Amino acid sequence: MAHQEKATSGVEWRITLGDGSSKSLVPDAGPVSRIWARLGGLIAGLVLKVWEFLKRAWDIGVDDPRKVIHCLKVGMALTVVSLVYFMRPLYKGLGGNAMWAIMTVVVVLENTVGATIYKCSNRVFATTLAGFLAFGVHWVASQSGHEFEALITGASVFILASATTFSRFIPSVKALFDYGALIFILTFSLVTVSGYRVDKLFDMACQRISTILIGTSLCLLVTMFICPIWAGEELHILISRNMDKLANSLDGCVDEHFDYNGEHKDSDKQPDKKLLGYKCVLSSKATEESMAKFARWEPAHGRFNFKHPWQQYLKIGASMRSCACCVAALNSCIDSENQAPEFIKKHLSNICLKVSSSSSSVLKEAAKTIKTMKRSSSIEFLVEEMSSAVQDMQNEIKYLPKLPSPPEVLHPESIETDDTTPTIHLMDVIPVVTLASLMIEISSRIQAIVETVEELAVLAKFKGEVQEKAKQNQPNINRIVASQLNDDQQTIKALERV
Amino acid sequence: MAHQEKATSGVEWRITLGDGSSKSLVPDAGPVSRIWARLGGLIAGLVLKVWEFLKRAWDIGVDDPRKVIHCLKVGMALTVVSLVYFMRPLYKGLGGNAMWAIMTVVVVLENTVGATIYKCSNRVFATTLAGFLAFGVHWVASQSGHEFEALITGASVFILASATTFSRFIPSVKALFDYGALIFILTFSLVTVSGYRVDKLFDMACQRISTILIGTSLCLLVTMFICPIWAGEELHILISRNMDKLANSLDGCVDEHFDYNGEHKDSDKQPDKKLLGYKCVLSSKATEESMAKFARWEPAHGRFNFKHPWQQYLKIGASMRSCACCVAALNSCIDSENQAPEFIKKHLSNICLKVSSSSSSVLKEAAKTIKTMKRSSSIEFLVEEMSSAVQDMQNEIKYLPKLPSPPEVLHPESIETDDTTPTIHLMDVIPVVTLASLMIEISSRIQAIVETVEELAVLAKFKGEVQEKAKQNQPNINRIVASQLNDDQQTIKALERV
Repeated sequence: MAHQEKATSGVEWRITLGDGSSKSLVPDAGPVSRIWARLGGLIAGLVLKVWEFLKRAWDIGVDDPRKVIHCLKVGMALTVVSLVYFMRPLYKGLGGNAMWAIMTVVVVLENTVGATIYKCSNRVFATTLAGFLAFGVHWVASQSGHEFEALITGASVFILASATTFSRFIPSVKALFDYGALIFILTFSLVTVSGYRVDKLFDMACQRISTILIGTSLCLLVTMFICPIWAGEELHILISRNMDKLANSLDGCVDEHFDYNGEHKDSDKQPDKKLLGYKCVLSSKATEESMAKFARWEPAHGRFNFKHPWQQYLKIGASMRSCACCVAALNSCIDSENQAPEFIKKHLSNICLKVSSSSSSVLKEAAKTIKTMKRSSSIEFLVEEMSSAVQDMQNEIKYLPKLPSPPEVLHPESIETDDTTPTIHLMDVIPVVTLASLMIEISSRIQAIVETVEELAVLAKFKGEVQEKAKQNQPNINRIVASQLNDDQQTIKALERV
Repeated sequence: MAHQEKATSGVEWRITLGDGSSKSLVPDAGPVSRIWARLGGLIAGLVLKVWEFLKRAWDIGVDDPRKVIHCLKVGMALTVVSLVYFMRPLYKGLGGNAMWAIMTVVVVLENTVGATIYKCSNRVFATTLAGFLAFGVHWVASQSGHEFEALITGASVFILASATTFSRFIPSVKALFDYGALIFILTFSLVTVSGYRVDKLFDMACQRISTILIGTSLCLLVTMFICPIWAGEELHILISRNMDKLANSLDGCVDEHFDYNGEHKDSDKQPDKKLLGYKCVLSSKATEESMAKFARWEPAHGRFNFKHPWQQYLKIGASMRSCACCVAALNSCIDSENQAPEFIKKHLSNICLKVSSSSSSVLKEAAKTIKTMKRSSSIEFLVEEMSSAVQDMQNEIKYLPKLPSPPEVLHPESIETDDTTPTIHLMDVIPVVTLASLMIEISSRIQAIVETVEELAVLAKFKGEVQEKAKQNQPNINRIVASQLNDDQQTIKALERV
C-alpha cells in the first residue's frame, strides 16, 4: 500500500484534496514555513512585550520626571568617579583601593537626600570604627604567635559578626544603623583577615577611608545640589495630599449616595478615582515610615528646620488611617444592597450632605495648615460648624418618630398584624442610621486628626496665627454687613409689596 | 571679711551651721566631690542604659530564638570563609579577589531562605552579565585608540548606569531584580574602568566570579541546611495566625460589649491584647508582601511545592484587612459614649453573640484550613450557620416595632408631646443598629475571605475533602443518635411521671 501510494502520488494527492483530509497535503513545505511562522510569531510577541515594557517605563518617567533626573544623577556621579579612577596618575596614587570610591557611589547614592546622608554617614562611621577595631585585633593576633593567630582572628570575626547581626534586630539600632551594621561586619572581616603586615595595613586603611570619603562627598554634592529630593518635603507633601484625598473621598462618597442615586448605575461603570482616595491613605504606612526615617538625617532645607518634628507626621498619618478605616466602612455601607427607601433618604440627605461637607472642609483646612505651614484660626470655627452639623443630624434622627415602650419590644409579634398600612420598618432605617453613626464616628476621628495637626503646629512653631485671625474676623464683618444689607433689601422688598 | 572668715574658718563654720544656711559649708570639698558625684551619676546612668538595652536585646532573643540562630549562622559562615581566606595557599591561588567571597557572604546571607536565594541568584546573574558586557565594552574601547578610550568608557558607564537605575523604578523589575540591578551597575563600572589589559581582565573576571560562586554556595548551604527559615512558611503561618487573631478580636469585642458590661471599668485598666488583634492584621501588609516576594524564589520545602500560589496569600491578606477595617469601626462604635439602654442591649445580646460567635468560628475554620492545608467541608455548613444567624438578627430587628408612616416622619414635631410615657427614641437604638449592620458587613467580608481561602485550596490542591466529609457526616449521625436517645429518655421520664 505504501509503495502504491508513493508511485501514484500525483493521483493520490488529488484524491486526498477531494476527500478534504489535508493532512498529507503539504508535507514538504510544512516544517520550514511552520518554523518561519513560529519564529515570526515569537519575534512579534517579543517586540510587543519589549514595546509594552518601554511604554510602561516611559509612563513612569512622564509621571514623575524626578525619577529620570535621579537616574541621570547616578549616571553622572558614576561617570565622574570612574573617569577619576581611569586617569592613571590618580589611580596609581590611591592604589587599587580606588575601586572603593566607585563602590561607594553605586551603593550610597539614593533617591532622596536623607537616604543618601543616612547611608553616607553610616558607611563612613562604620568603616572607621570597624577599621580601627580590626587594626587592634590584627595587632593582638600577630603578637600572639602563629598557632593563636588563626584562633584569635576566627573567634573575633565570629563574635563580632554574630553580635552585630543580632543588633540589627533591635528596633532602635535598625532605625538608625542598619546599613552601618552591615558595613561594620564587612570592613571588620576584610581588615582582620587580610594577610598584610600591620604597617602596610595602616596605610591601606587610611587609603580606603580616604577613597570612601571621596565617594561619599561626591554623592552628597550630587544629591544635595542637583535637583535635590528631600525625604522630609516628600513626607510633608504626602501627608497633606493624603489628607486632601481623604476629604475628597469622604465628600464624594456621601455626595454620590444622595445626589446621583438615580444615575448610580452609570457611575458604576467608571468608578471615580477620587472616591478611592481613602485606599491611598490606608496603604501609605510603609512609605511614611521610611520617609520619616530618612528625614531625620536631613539638614535644614526650605521651610524645614533641622529639628523639624518628623515623628509627628507619623502620628498624623496614623490618625488619618484610623479615619480612613471608617470611610472604608462608610463606603461599603453605601455600596451594600440594603438601601433605605427614597423618602427617608431625601429627608436626611440635606443634613448628611452638610455633615460630610463640613467634615471634609475641616480636613481640607487641616491639609492647608500643613501645606502652607501657617496656623489657621478658622479651623476652630470649622470644627465647631462640623460639631453643630453632627448635633443637627442627631436631632434630625431624634425627631424621627419614637419607638413604642419596652414591653412591646420584647413581644414584637403583637404588632405584626397591621401590614397593610404604609409603615416604616426599622429595617428600612438601618442603612441611613448606620451611615449617620459612621459619619459621627468619622467626625470624631477628624477631630483627632485636627488635634495631631495642632500638635504639629506647636512643635514646628507654625506662624501666621495673628494674620489668620485678622483674616478670620474679616469674613465675620463681611457676613454681618452682608446680612444687614440682606435685611435692608428684604425690608425694601416688603415695602414695595405694600 | 574674706580674710577674717578664712582665719576663723572653724568658728565661722559652726555659726553657719547654726544659721542653717549650708551654702558655705563645704566650699573646699565641693568641686572634687561634685565631679565624683556627677561622674558616678553618669556612669550609673550609662550602666543603667546599657543594662536596659541588653535586657531588651535579651527579650528579643528569648521571644524568637531563630533570630539568635540566624546570627550564629552569619558568624559561622563568615568565620569559615575568613579562615579559608586566611590560609595562605588558597589566598594566593584566588588572589586579592578572595575578598569578594567575604563580601558576598556579608551582603547575601539573609534571615530567610528565599531572601538569600533571591540575593544569590541576582548577584551571580548580574555579575556574570555585567562582567561579559563590560569585557566587550573594554575591548572596543581599547581598540579605538587612546583619545576615544575615555569617551567610550565614560559614555557606556553613564548610559548603562542611568538606564539600570531607572529600571529599578519599574515595579516588575523591582520585584525580581532590584538587588541585581545594583550589582550590575557595580560590576560593570568596576570592570569597564579597571586599567587592566584584556587578557589579564578575563582572568580576573573568572576569578571574581568563582569567588562569588564560593561565597554564594556557602551561603546557600548554611541558610538551607542549618535551621532554615522559609519565607513561604513564615507567610503561611502569619496569614493563618492573623486570621485567628481577627476571629478572637471580633469575638472578644462583641463579648465584652454584651457580657461584661457591668465590669467594663475593670477591664479598661487591662485592655485585652486579644481585642487588638485586628491591628496586627491592618499593619502586616508590608511584611506579607516582602515574604511573598521572597517565597517565590524558594524550592519545594515541607508541605509546599515549587509553584505554590504565594500571590493568593496576598489576596487573602487584603480581604482580611478589609474585614479588619470593619472590626476597627465596630470596636470604636462599641467604645463610643452613646450606648443603647440596657434593656435593648439585653434583648439583642443573644442574637448578636450568636452572629459574632458564628462569624468567628467561620474565620477560625478558614484559618484551620490554611494551617492544616486540608479542605474542610464543614466550612460551608458554618457559613450557612453564619448567614442564618445574620438573617435571624435582621428579623429580630425587623420585629422591633415599626415606625409610623412617612408624613409623620417629615413633620416630626407633631409627636414630640407624649414625653411622659416610657418610649424608645430612635436615638437610643442607633448604637445597637449600627453594631448590627457593621456585623452584617463583617459577615459579608468574612464570606469574601472564605472565597479567597477556597481559591487558595483549589490553586494549591489542598486535600482531605473526602475524609473531612466523612468526619462531617459523623457528627450528624451522632446527633441523630443522641436526639433519639434523648427522645427515649424523655418518654421514659414521662412514663415514670405517669
